[in-house]
Amino acid sequence: MLTTNPFDDDHLREECGVFGIYGHPEAAALTALGLHALQHRGQEAAGIVAHDGDVFHNHRDLGHVEDCFGSESIIRKLKGAAAVGHVRYSTTGETLLRNVQPLFAEMEFGGLALAHNGNLTNTNVLRRSLVKRGCLFQSTTDTEVIIHLIAISLYTSVEDRLIDALRQIEGAYSLTCLTKDGVMGVRDPLGIRPLVLGKLDGAWCLASETCAFDIIGAEFVRDVEPGEIVVISATGLRSLKPFAIKQRRFCIFEYIYFARPDSIMEGTSVYDVRKRIGAQLARESAVDADVIIPVPDSGVPAAIGYAAQAGIPFELGIIRNHYVGRTFIQPTDRTRHVGVKMKHNPNRHAIEGKRVVLVDDSIVRGTTSRKIVEMVRQAGASEVHMRISSPPTNHCCYFGIDTPEREKLLAARYDVDGMAKLIGVDSLAFISLDGLYKAVGEEARNPAAPQYCDACFTGDYPIMPTDYADQLSDPKQLSLLGEAGK
Amino acid sequence: MLTTNPFDDDHLREECGVFGIYGHPEAAALTALGLHALQHRGQEAAGIVAHDGDVFHNHRDLGHVEDCFGSESIIRKLKGAAAVGHVRYSTTGETLLRNVQPLFAEMEFGGLALAHNGNLTNTNVLRRSLVKRGCLFQSTTDTEVIIHLIAISLYTSVEDRLIDALRQIEGAYSLTCLTKDGVMGVRDPLGIRPLVLGKLDGAWCLASETCAFDIIGAEFVRDVEPGEIVVISATGLRSLKPFAIKQRRFCIFEYIYFARPDSIMEGTSVYDVRKRIGAQLARESAVDADVIIPVPDSGVPAAIGYAAQAGIPFELGIIRNHYVGRTFIQPTDRTRHVGVKMKHNPNRHAIEGKRVVLVDDSIVRGTTSRKIVEMVRQAGASEVHMRISSPPTNHCCYFGIDTPEREKLLAARYDVDGMAKLIGVDSLAFISLDGLYKAVGEEARNPAAPQYCDACFTGDYPIMPTDYADQLSDPKQLSLLGEAGK
Amino acid sequence: MLTTNPFDDDHLREECGVFGIYGHPEAAALTALGLHALQHRGQEAAGIVAHDGDVFHNHRDLGHVEDCFGSESIIRKLKGAAAVGHVRYSTTGETLLRNVQPLFAEMEFGGLALAHNGNLTNTNVLRRSLVKRGCLFQSTTDTEVIIHLIAISLYTSVEDRLIDALRQIEGAYSLTCLTKDGVMGVRDPLGIRPLVLGKLDGAWCLASETCAFDIIGAEFVRDVEPGEIVVISATGLRSLKPFAIKQRRFCIFEYIYFARPDSIMEGTSVYDVRKRIGAQLARESAVDADVIIPVPDSGVPAAIGYAAQAGIPFELGIIRNHYVGRTFIQPTDRTRHVGVKMKHNPNRHAIEGKRVVLVDDSIVRGTTSRKIVEMVRQAGASEVHMRISSPPTNHCCYFGIDTPEREKLLAARYDVDGMAKLIGVDSLAFISLDGLYKAVGEEARNPAAPQYCDACFTGDYPIMPTDYADQLSDPKQLSLLGEAGK
Amino acid sequence: MLTTNPFDDDHLREECGVFGIYGHPEAAALTALGLHALQHRGQEAAGIVAHDGDVFHNHRDLGHVEDCFGSESIIRKLKGAAAVGHVRYSTTGETLLRNVQPLFAEMEFGGLALAHNGNLTNTNVLRRSLVKRGCLFQSTTDTEVIIHLIAISLYTSVEDRLIDALRQIEGAYSLTCLTKDGVMGVRDPLGIRPLVLGKLDGAWCLASETCAFDIIGAEFVRDVEPGEIVVISATGLRSLKPFAIKQRRFCIFEYIYFARPDSIMEGTSVYDVRKRIGAQLARESAVDADVIIPVPDSGVPAAIGYAAQAGIPFELGIIRNHYVGRTFIQPTDRTRHVGVKMKHNPNRHAIEGKRVVLVDDSIVRGTTSRKIVEMVRQAGASEVHMRISSPPTNHCCYFGIDTPEREKLLAARYDVDGMAKLIGVDSLAFISLDGLYKAVGEEARNPAAPQYCDACFTGDYPIMPTDYADQLSDPKQLSLLGEAGK
Repeated sequence: MLTTNPFDDDHLREECGVFGIYGHPEAAALTALGLHALQHRGQEAAGIVAHDGDVFHNHRDLGHVEDCFGSESIIRKLKGAAAVGHVRYSTTGETLLRNVQPLFAEMEFGGLALAHNGNLTNTNVLRRSLVKRGCLFQSTTDTEVIIHLIAISLYTSVEDRLIDALRQIEGAYSLTCLTKDGVMGVRDPLGIRPLVLGKLDGAWCLASETCAFDIIGAEFVRDVEPGEIVVISATGLRSLKPFAIKQRRFCIFEYIYFARPDSIMEGTSVYDVRKRIGAQLARESAVDADVIIPVPDSGVPAAIGYAAQAGIPFELGIIRNHYVGRTFIQPTDRTRHVGVKMKHNPNRHAIEGKRVVLVDDSIVRGTTSRKIVEMVRQAGASEVHMRISSPPTNHCCYFGIDTPEREKLLAARYDVDGMAKLIGVDSLAFISLDGLYKAVGEEARNPAAPQYCDACFTGDYPIMPTDYADQLSDPKQLSLLGEAGK
Repeated sequence: MLTTNPFDDDHLREECGVFGIYGHPEAAALTALGLHALQHRGQEAAGIVAHDGDVFHNHRDLGHVEDCFGSESIIRKLKGAAAVGHVRYSTTGETLLRNVQPLFAEMEFGGLALAHNGNLTNTNVLRRSLVKRGCLFQSTTDTEVIIHLIAISLYTSVEDRLIDALRQIEGAYSLTCLTKDGVMGVRDPLGIRPLVLGKLDGAWCLASETCAFDIIGAEFVRDVEPGEIVVISATGLRSLKPFAIKQRRFCIFEYIYFARPDSIMEGTSVYDVRKRIGAQLARESAVDADVIIPVPDSGVPAAIGYAAQAGIPFELGIIRNHYVGRTFIQPTDRTRHVGVKMKHNPNRHAIEGKRVVLVDDSIVRGTTSRKIVEMVRQAGASEVHMRISSPPTNHCCYFGIDTPEREKLLAARYDVDGMAKLIGVDSLAFISLDGLYKAVGEEARNPAAPQYCDACFTGDYPIMPTDYADQLSDPKQLSLLGEAGK
Repeated sequence: MLTTNPFDDDHLREECGVFGIYGHPEAAALTALGLHALQHRGQEAAGIVAHDGDVFHNHRDLGHVEDCFGSESIIRKLKGAAAVGHVRYSTTGETLLRNVQPLFAEMEFGGLALAHNGNLTNTNVLRRSLVKRGCLFQSTTDTEVIIHLIAISLYTSVEDRLIDALRQIEGAYSLTCLTKDGVMGVRDPLGIRPLVLGKLDGAWCLASETCAFDIIGAEFVRDVEPGEIVVISATGLRSLKPFAIKQRRFCIFEYIYFARPDSIMEGTSVYDVRKRIGAQLARESAVDADVIIPVPDSGVPAAIGYAAQAGIPFELGIIRNHYVGRTFIQPTDRTRHVGVKMKHNPNRHAIEGKRVVLVDDSIVRGTTSRKIVEMVRQAGASEVHMRISSPPTNHCCYFGIDTPEREKLLAARYDVDGMAKLIGVDSLAFISLDGLYKAVGEEARNPAAPQYCDACFTGDYPIMPTDYADQLSDPKQLSLLGEAGK
Repeated sequence: MLTTNPFDDDHLREECGVFGIYGHPEAAALTALGLHALQHRGQEAAGIVAHDGDVFHNHRDLGHVEDCFGSESIIRKLKGAAAVGHVRYSTTGETLLRNVQPLFAEMEFGGLALAHNGNLTNTNVLRRSLVKRGCLFQSTTDTEVIIHLIAISLYTSVEDRLIDALRQIEGAYSLTCLTKDGVMGVRDPLGIRPLVLGKLDGAWCLASETCAFDIIGAEFVRDVEPGEIVVISATGLRSLKPFAIKQRRFCIFEYIYFARPDSIMEGTSVYDVRKRIGAQLARESAVDADVIIPVPDSGVPAAIGYAAQAGIPFELGIIRNHYVGRTFIQPTDRTRHVGVKMKHNPNRHAIEGKRVVLVDDSIVRGTTSRKIVEMVRQAGASEVHMRISSPPTNHCCYFGIDTPEREKLLAARYDVDGMAKLIGVDSLAFISLDGLYKAVGEEARNPAAPQYCDACFTGDYPIMPTDYADQLSDPKQLSLLGEAGK
């Protein structure tokens, strides 16, 4: 009932968003609001753990943030001036309540709650050795590996135990972590996933995106640095940098699709980047046309940029039905053709007899693109051209983004001409890799040391993903945890 | 939990949408899809009654169409080739399951299901006399009055009984009605609310808007005429016109806000009308500015029209969070200021240092407008001008639209200057009444015989609302039905 | 989920219990407690309607009284000093919430709530004529017929309307009725079902059995007389007797099984009657044996009487599992044999090697008896004799008791020897009809004018059941009401 | 909603029941039935883990066994020929789903499920040292300590790991344990809690009581011995006895109250013991009386024994309402006096004017006894004598029975005369300690080496309860686990 149909609109999906705040009397309420603003990063489950100076309070549930935290009684229960929160989009198996974050554990030094955005790439190896040692896993998440590593660390302080754990894990991670002493924010050494620092009424806060600060009225201070641990406690904010400095490799797809357009990432407005991509695309692959039509909603900023650059009218040629959030079971063959129409309807009067440029952000499996093109043609378009505001998506992501297996990626199977044919357009163009780097403010991509993680386009992974190198490495029976239900 | 906060975005609300189909093996599934496309007309409850040639099947529930009809087992239960459906936005009291339509009753001639969009204006008088006669009411809806009038009619055929009932009721009504013999569609003599006729695979269908035909792939045939009864049965379609012909008075606000932009109403594209309104507004009340920013989502087409006419860039200066569908309880004073930010966030980079024109469709109580203007100013706009794509909303609607009491309408309390001051804009302008009529294709409003119902702007009601003339006329104890719950 | 398996222990079932109270500030709470004490008369649904001097309040739900009325908030909602309540065991179709009593309707004179124990026998005829007149039925209960008859009555006062309605109905009925002016109690002219009058702190109360007075600490005053209407209002208690006096025909099965043993019916202790039946049975059909074992729980008092009369030890030879209230789905053939063991387990040490007399209250279809006998034999009994504290159940009841079709009654298909063989006992005996009458205090049954309704044993129906004479009379489509659900 | 009011009838409570079966195609269904028969040992939660030769399947829920396992789909999901199950009565805090057993963990050698009846008395010490080592606890149950001890054991085989763990724990435990290789049954060295071995269709089964074998038609083979580990696998049944042999100390209260009367414990019928206790009580403390009345249901066998020995009639003088399983909220002061009447009603006709002997099994806090005596007096008893089929309950139990703090035990605060006065009886007598030992077949209690655990009467604890010696030893923050909810 709660499962959003994965890839129902054929997009890659961000898997998580995190939040944290320390020193504010409304910590849990602000965390709930922050998570609400991060809802696009994970729509299937949400959780908050708060600490009131004495004990921890916890609420985690399946569903949207509003469903989980909409009632005053729940917020009131989450007492305390420190809290961390998490929204989650489930990728592996079902969304089980036991996998909902923040994860919490009682350790020798007290309780610890952990919220994680990203994905570890050496989980299986670590998990096997922990199980061998006698560690019992409660969930099937990679995040729990970090918890156990902290629990068994021989260091005394939480910070040292955390650093001890971080040294053993590989992959992408932006973490918020709550103990009885404070809140910590961590970003992996490459800074693959975002994490920003803000301030509200003197209280420090952490979030995946700045839009979470906007909603609570907090001031955006700065990005947490790659490899930085921010420790917020009664004595203020300290910054630890225990790792060797590396070339940062922020995920460029955050700009293209994942982040909200009103967020600022690594100092740059996401909306601006998207418009610049649209403009660059218009320059790179112009075409004679009557209207520029975005595939709503994510294609809109690029379409505005494209239309302005090309001097062609921008029109809402496709109307999106915003009531579609969950799957609507199609009963029979006769009604199966509605498919894409559940969500999108052509606005015939803006299309009929026109040469149309459709602007979308990406093509993953191509299924939705094909249906939208067909729909636009049926509505009377005389020509349909498609312009994509990312390079072809050609490789899987192992760093916290839900991608289908590589053989299902259209770009891994066809060249651009083949794709155009399959999708049924008169012309198809993707932005060039260098064009994309230009739009984010670089002169061009530096192939020797790429400024961003663009592995989904290039296959140039910033870290060798250990687990995925060896596909045989699944622990034997995790099925009970996997199915155990509530 | 299920109640959407009324006026959370300070709009008038359409109260209902209807659908009907006869002669298609997937009647219930198609009805569910049609209702899904009409979801914007009523989000709190949905119902379908189907007839399988032998017996009637029924499912009604609170929530969105997807929640009510998303499961195959429910659709499969609704057997038969004929069905009618309804979506509802509750205005009076709570949304009780017993008030969810289609209403159904067993009569001497068999069962009858009725779905109603609109509002009757002589309900109280009729209800009192029916109760006196011994009729027992099951719901608190005006629609049940029609049911009882049909039940007690001395005519033999269902059609004659229906006409007998219609002669006694006053107000706005678009009905779909299901009996064992077929489906009927009815539109009141003034044609205040919409009702359209379509065809799919040889089966006739009825809907409040054409977008419901698009989703199922049906062809739009024509509007049902004001005062027309369309009778669809095994012998085909017959049209009855039992009433004297009157000047049609279609609700002009359907064009401005209620209808989906991709619908066609009375032969005209709603999207086109909205763009033309925007252009007309730009002509009527131009202002020097740097960006045109729509208040999403309803202000977008008018803003596009305005921007194109004015030659000023159109920008997404306000980002809407689409995960807000239900109320999010604000826990305390400190977090109460988030208010409008739950739904809207300024896109600072599109606003900062700019002279902004905000385009919205209407101002009802002004509460949201005020907060949006404040938000845009805080995001750094140097000037804020507001342009409204309707005339000032000055009077209550009694014909199926949920309006607050007149004293809460901003336009009933202030002139345009006063409103501008209150909302905090540098300038405020509404489209003129004649400008609005121009946008819908008339030369101007004909004051002697207005071509549309525009009573919410003019107070010129096409029918004297009997019930509301006498505010003392409530039946004594309806509280039990009112509170009885499921 | 809520449906108790009908006949899971092969007993006839009382269909309802009623309660009413007027003039007590805790009216609803006391009604809930009274219904709890009457739970054995109806376990599938419960309802209370209260009146607070101004408006009516209503709560009805599926489940046990504790489930429906266990929360303080629900009781607090049912404000007022007057209330009526109902517990229900559903016989026809599913237990739908719309069929849960008390039924309530708004009439010209105000609201009226009605709770009914019994069954009308001319419902179909009346219902057809009411539907013809234009009355719309909300439920499938016979009780609603009374409501409509009251609604359309041309008399002015509620009492006269009620009498007008009662004159038209046939069958068994004990009613409690709530209006804004007070509470009324009604018993049909033959007094088939029980209704008693009590007093608590100066407030009059009505109940199906005296055990409902015990729980609230009320004093039992007297039985309501057959054909009497008791009117309780601000001016005190009035008794109306608008019907010609007839020979009373109280249901003798209330003594045998339906009533709680601690109730007093028609002036006689039910427990005493059951012990006297047991003693009479011992006199009528003695047998050499080692132990007297009741089939729990209903067989216990008769077994005590039997054991004392026979001078044979009474033992708990069968242990009942009280956690069985709902159906337990048996998964497969291998586990199907558990059947009766879900509820009953032999106490081997009280049985092994013994000559056993099993005492039970009745044999309906014989299925459970057979299994219990087999179980007792497997536990090592050397002989098994069965003694039944009622005459053979040979005919259907149409007066408020749920009986299977006659062809399923074992006594309608076999004589006592045949039954003994089928059940597998060494001997079987039922109490004689005259023996039963002796146990209730009569000298013998008067065949000319029987003192009780004993139609289930004799077929001598006190009223000709109109509806059931003509088995074709079902109204055609009630399926929608029948399935409309929730 | 689900919490049964603890001590609502002022009894001690058994905390758990266990079941296990290996080698039967219907393992889960049979386990569900077995748990149903053990329902009296734990009514708040139930769980089953099954193994199908490949993976484990798990279902645990709050509520009665019927509620948890009543649906075929759940049973069908629990595939496999081996299963263990558990019913639980929660003592500490709320009944959390995470505390519901069988507990399950993935270890190096595979999965392990554990169901525990009893209570460990050195949990806190062990838990602290495990947490120090880095073990993370998922529940607040003592059972999880065993799981972690197995997980970290350095032995290779599951059996050796289990023995390693058992050597470190103290207290009472009867365990059933499921691994991929088979089912194990364990009983602590003193045999405090029961565990029996049975056979069905060639498959071995284990249960807390023999009544669980009766329901599935299994044959009772023998008790598992104190200190014995029974290993059931594909190669048949092996018995391990790794502990030094000690004097067995079976819980004597199992005979008095906890066990079902139809169970056989340590070779003796529970029903027979109870009748013998009643007879012994009649011999020890005779009194002139007219009727012997059991406090239902648990007092019935002793009352039968007493009545037969004393030659005084046995009567059902108190009727129990079996619909009371959960709390019924009393709304106000006026209705608060109903208290005990929710569950018990005096049968006035069996009491009025009589000298009554009430027979009950124990007095814990005395609250219910007092109300019952008052109720019986109000029903007209001329004298009320109370006879208790256990010695005075004077000390807390630490071995799996839920007792109130010692200061709440009536016998810890008053001598018998003082108790009689408080309860309001004309005379009060408990069975003597030696009389009790006689009834269970001993000549007398051996004070040097008591044959049973009778610590609740004598304070003579068979094991020093480590944790409870030091009342300060609670781990600091377990509140999150404690409140975390589902």
